[in-house]
Amino acid sequence: MRWLDLVLGRPLASSEDKEERVGVIPGVSVFGLDALSSAAYGPEAALTVLIPVGTAGLLFGLPITIAVSVILAIVYLSYRQTIAAYPNGAGSYTVAKENLGSRAGLLAAVALMIDYTLNVAVGISAGVGAIVSAAPGLQPYTLLLCLAILAALAYMNLRGLREAGLAFVPPTYLFVGCLGLVILIGVFRTLTSGGHPQAAVAPPPAPQAHEQITLWLFLKAFAAGCTAMTGVEAVSNGVQAFKEPPVPSARKTLTFIVGILILLLIGVAFLVRSYGITATEPGSPQYQSILSMMTQAVVGRGIFYYITMVAVLLVLCLSANTSFADFPRVCRTIAQDGYLPYSFTVRGRRLVFTEGILVLTVLSGALLICFNGVTDKLIPLFAVGAFLAFTLSQAGMVMHWLKLKQPGMTSSVAMNAIGAIATGITFLIVIVTKFHEGAWVVLLVIPGLYLFMLTIHRHYTQIAEELALSGPVDLPQPLPMIAVLPLMNVNSLAERALRIAYSLSDEVKVVHVQCENSPSDFPREWDENVRPAITEAKLAEPEMIILESPYRHVVAPTLSYIWRLEKDNPDRSIAVLIPQLIESHWYYSFLHNQRAAIMRTVLLMKGLNRIVIVNVPWHIEKREKVRQATKQIWDKLPARLDN
Amino acid sequence: MRWLDLVLGRPLASSEDKEERVGVIPGVSVFGLDALSSAAYGPEAALTVLIPVGTAGLLFGLPITIAVSVILAIVYLSYRQTIAAYPNGAGSYTVAKENLGSRAGLLAAVALMIDYTLNVAVGISAGVGAIVSAAPGLQPYTLLLCLAILAALAYMNLRGLREAGLAFVPPTYLFVGCLGLVILIGVFRTLTSGGHPQAAVAPPPAPQAHEQITLWLFLKAFAAGCTAMTGVEAVSNGVQAFKEPPVPSARKTLTFIVGILILLLIGVAFLVRSYGITATEPGSPQYQSILSMMTQAVVGRGIFYYITMVAVLLVLCLSANTSFADFPRVCRTIAQDGYLPYSFTVRGRRLVFTEGILVLTVLSGALLICFNGVTDKLIPLFAVGAFLAFTLSQAGMVMHWLKLKQPGMTSSVAMNAIGAIATGITFLIVIVTKFHEGAWVVLLVIPGLYLFMLTIHRHYTQIAEELALSGPVDLPQPLPMIAVLPLMNVNSLAERALRIAYSLSDEVKVVHVQCENSPSDFPREWDENVRPAITEAKLAEPEMIILESPYRHVVAPTLSYIWRLEKDNPDRSIAVLIPQLIESHWYYSFLHNQRAAIMRTVLLMKGLNRIVIVNVPWHIEKREKVRQATKQIWDKLPARLDN
Repeated sequence: MRWLDLVLGRPLASSEDKEERVGVIPGVSVFGLDALSSAAYGPEAALTVLIPVGTAGLLFGLPITIAVSVILAIVYLSYRQTIAAYPNGAGSYTVAKENLGSRAGLLAAVALMIDYTLNVAVGISAGVGAIVSAAPGLQPYTLLLCLAILAALAYMNLRGLREAGLAFVPPTYLFVGCLGLVILIGVFRTLTSGGHPQAAVAPPPAPQAHEQITLWLFLKAFAAGCTAMTGVEAVSNGVQAFKEPPVPSARKTLTFIVGILILLLIGVAFLVRSYGITATEPGSPQYQSILSMMTQAVVGRGIFYYITMVAVLLVLCLSANTSFADFPRVCRTIAQDGYLPYSFTVRGRRLVFTEGILVLTVLSGALLICFNGVTDKLIPLFAVGAFLAFTLSQAGMVMHWLKLKQPGMTSSVAMNAIGAIATGITFLIVIVTKFHEGAWVVLLVIPGLYLFMLTIHRHYTQIAEELALSGPVDLPQPLPMIAVLPLMNVNSLAERALRIAYSLSDEVKVVHVQCENSPSDFPREWDENVRPAITEAKLAEPEMIILESPYRHVVAPTLSYIWRLEKDNPDRSIAVLIPQLIESHWYYSFLHNQRAAIMRTVLLMKGLNRIVIVNVPWHIEKREKVRQATKQIWDKLPARLDN
Repeated sequence: MRWLDLVLGRPLASSEDKEERVGVIPGVSVFGLDALSSAAYGPEAALTVLIPVGTAGLLFGLPITIAVSVILAIVYLSYRQTIAAYPNGAGSYTVAKENLGSRAGLLAAVALMIDYTLNVAVGISAGVGAIVSAAPGLQPYTLLLCLAILAALAYMNLRGLREAGLAFVPPTYLFVGCLGLVILIGVFRTLTSGGHPQAAVAPPPAPQAHEQITLWLFLKAFAAGCTAMTGVEAVSNGVQAFKEPPVPSARKTLTFIVGILILLLIGVAFLVRSYGITATEPGSPQYQSILSMMTQAVVGRGIFYYITMVAVLLVLCLSANTSFADFPRVCRTIAQDGYLPYSFTVRGRRLVFTEGILVLTVLSGALLICFNGVTDKLIPLFAVGAFLAFTLSQAGMVMHWLKLKQPGMTSSVAMNAIGAIATGITFLIVIVTKFHEGAWVVLLVIPGLYLFMLTIHRHYTQIAEELALSGPVDLPQPLPMIAVLPLMNVNSLAERALRIAYSLSDEVKVVHVQCENSPSDFPREWDENVRPAITEAKLAEPEMIILESPYRHVVAPTLSYIWRLEKDNPDRSIAVLIPQLIESHWYYSFLHNQRAAIMRTVLLMKGLNRIVIVNVPWHIEKREKVRQATKQIWDKLPARLDN
């Protein structure tokens, strides 16, 4: 199909896999957008929690960011090791499965899948939210914009990993470059001004404090800041998507992503403090994002400010791309183990896991539609899944080292154990602080999805058991079947079907249903046109079954005859021949009854395994062709029999 | 299915046909509602045309009605003879076909079908219009009411002829009784008062005359009055629906219908004149129907007036029923000759022609929806079809008598010739006077439908030719086929398919597509589990075809192999075995690829006639059953071979 080639690109051969792989630079934008975009909303989320404490919030911003960065570093080191230990690509699912058992692995996978789906909806919605607040005229088109971006992301990813990566490289590096420059300038000015730089555009005054800082508030701010950490998992699942040698490339990419992210996070936190920027109430008319206030304070409201803001918006919108790169891979891995439909493992024309991409698009599109394009309410649910997966993955790595018993493993064990404990505690903090805001929903969905996957797995196992051979196959001499041939008329199609029936079996049973609409005198035609030929060919006379049909049904009496025959012959296979006219155009099919199709479907669905269905098609408007072909067959036959 | 029994009634056996037939009394309401309801709108239509001539209209009402009645009487006499001449039921179609050729017959049939479809829409819409003008609160629900009545009519007719007849008897006779009583009283009062009775409620004053009576206006009024004549055809098509002996019953019914109709028409015209009633402008606030003014004038606005009006409304709504009784029969007759899909000839569970009823419901429902329940614009189109059919039918009867050459046929010939000329002229008058109002649409639709039916007929003829045997069937010795067996794995399903392949042919070709997702090492498994069994059973080794699939397709390479095989063996039949897992529940099918279904469909549609498709189903969750069954087969086999 040419148009599919145009839209999705030409099909790629499996052997072209290597050329579709990505290097470090596009790798950062394929697998890192989710993590990097965190710099735009992580600090914001933490500082928003601190609004009630007023200027005191300025004191806690940096410590919280450092705490988040430490956890991030631990997670990074752990995944670095995972990449080396599983060079075929393995995220929390594989690590947890191999070291803690398949149930733990499945739990991690479910958590990650939920996290990725939420990430798509929340990322796109956040980006569109920012666009809409910049251009309020677009407000009525919020949902439409969200869905358009979703469609664009799905499309790019269906075109292939490399194309998606290359397309997203410019915005990624524009974002990193702009924000990095702002931070550099800001830090330089702070240092040269003795810690109190003059803001180019002064941030709004700090809000009045009407609460004391408490441990609860601090933990809430920390939990909010932890949303910055989602998406770090992606690289380890996608090792196989990197250019040769994949492991060093993947590790380098992960290092880049996390390194840049930590620098950005700490840079932002530092400048926020030195310029005295406090968060503004979201949804209030004075609302302005932290990054916007910071950039204004450092470089003023010039052209550079606008470029930076555009880059931030782009990266927020595209952060969903990480989910598109990783979700299908997670699904693939799970499907290979039989916990999801097997079709998730099939690579489409562009060597991507098409079904995973489509499912992610549908799920996140449904979320966007349900929440009308504004997914603020989903943000608290975010990060629950990620931290559950982190914890299971770290714990798995601890077991991995313990099992491996390599020299010098103590430090690895220690590091992963610290990681497991740290992310585990963070998971609990996130759950507890966000429970009322909706994290409980995730705690309900996780077991639901988990059980669903177990059901699929049980079904696959059952089928595999049913189909398994207990040893070599058993091939006795071919068994004569009973051939059942339902006929309404004696015509060329019937002739052909009869020939095939005789080549299947000597025991042919012709079934004819007699009802008021029977157009012809079947028994007479049979006697005239068929019986002499059978005698002449010295074939066994078929048994003729004439069925009465008081209620004018044709299929039903034929089927009940077949069921009876099957019951009466428990030791035989039965071949039911179904002669069928095939029209050259679909609309002609209205001119014929659909008995053949109905009979085939019912026999397939309801028949026992001993019933075999033989379709005998007759293509209309191929008469001459067929004539010639059959003539050739019968002309050559004697010659062949002689040889 | 119990619920279908509940809704539509238990299925009726073909032998119960006799009990479903109707006598004269219900016959009048089954086949006569269309004609009888004409008394309500025929005079109205004629008098409305005469509004511009003011009181002069009073002079012309009666002559026009008498002219219409004369034509009606001629048509009646003609159909009476048709009933006797064609005791199996025959309308214009059969009469014209048998005597004027099949083209003329088809033209009559097309005209009638259009007329019947319009009748349903116009009848229901007129009834609902009257209801709505009585209860203006229902105005917004006009279309809904129309569709509800349509659905009720369709439902009653699907339940069977007898049930529909019995249900519609009370309103029919209520209408005839009430209107007859009003006319009797009115005529009595007119005669006793010397021709100038005192009106109980005086009719509104006659409109100002602002036109002279012209021949054109007179003809228009006559053409409008002729709408009263549609539906007379119905009885002659439905002779077989009457109780034994059908011909006298049908003739008696027709006599009843036409007799009552003529009495009502002339009675109304007489009273309209003696009470000085003129039509009111439709759509004006003063609008009141002729029947309403007449009933008021005769009996006053009491309870009897309201009963009469309700009866009129009911009969208008139900007049569509005649179409439901006759349209399916016309379709059946045409379909039997191959001009409509053959399924129109099949009688459903209640011995009615289900498909005709459904098609009529859909077509007239579409008309109602297109015109939003107000079909005034369709009224001019009405009667065009009916008069074309009448003319053809009368002309056909003339030929019939001439061919028959019975003694005393002169009077018959003369009468039918007069009828043909009279209805032919009426047809021309209707066409000419109503051309601008929309009759041209009918003149376009008739040839369109006509060509459509010819196309269907040509297609059926072509197929019949293709399928016709040129003589006795040709049955050479069974031909060894090539059995092609596509396999992905070696499992129990493959084992079963292989057994069947060997019972079909010694020449088995196993096709395996190798692509990245192939879960198993097929050639190795084959060597281990299958090859020894083949050797042991002394069977011919199957040819193993391993196909590479760089683009990860499975169906496409298999199919192209089959096409190649077919081309390379122009003298062989090829049996393609398709092993298929059948799940116990449809939703499980998401867990499997649909390759078997796709392959079967493509082979059926695109394969040549030499390809036969053999479905080898494997029903999941029937393992134990199957085990036992196969065990029995193979256990008993040696014993059988010994005998």
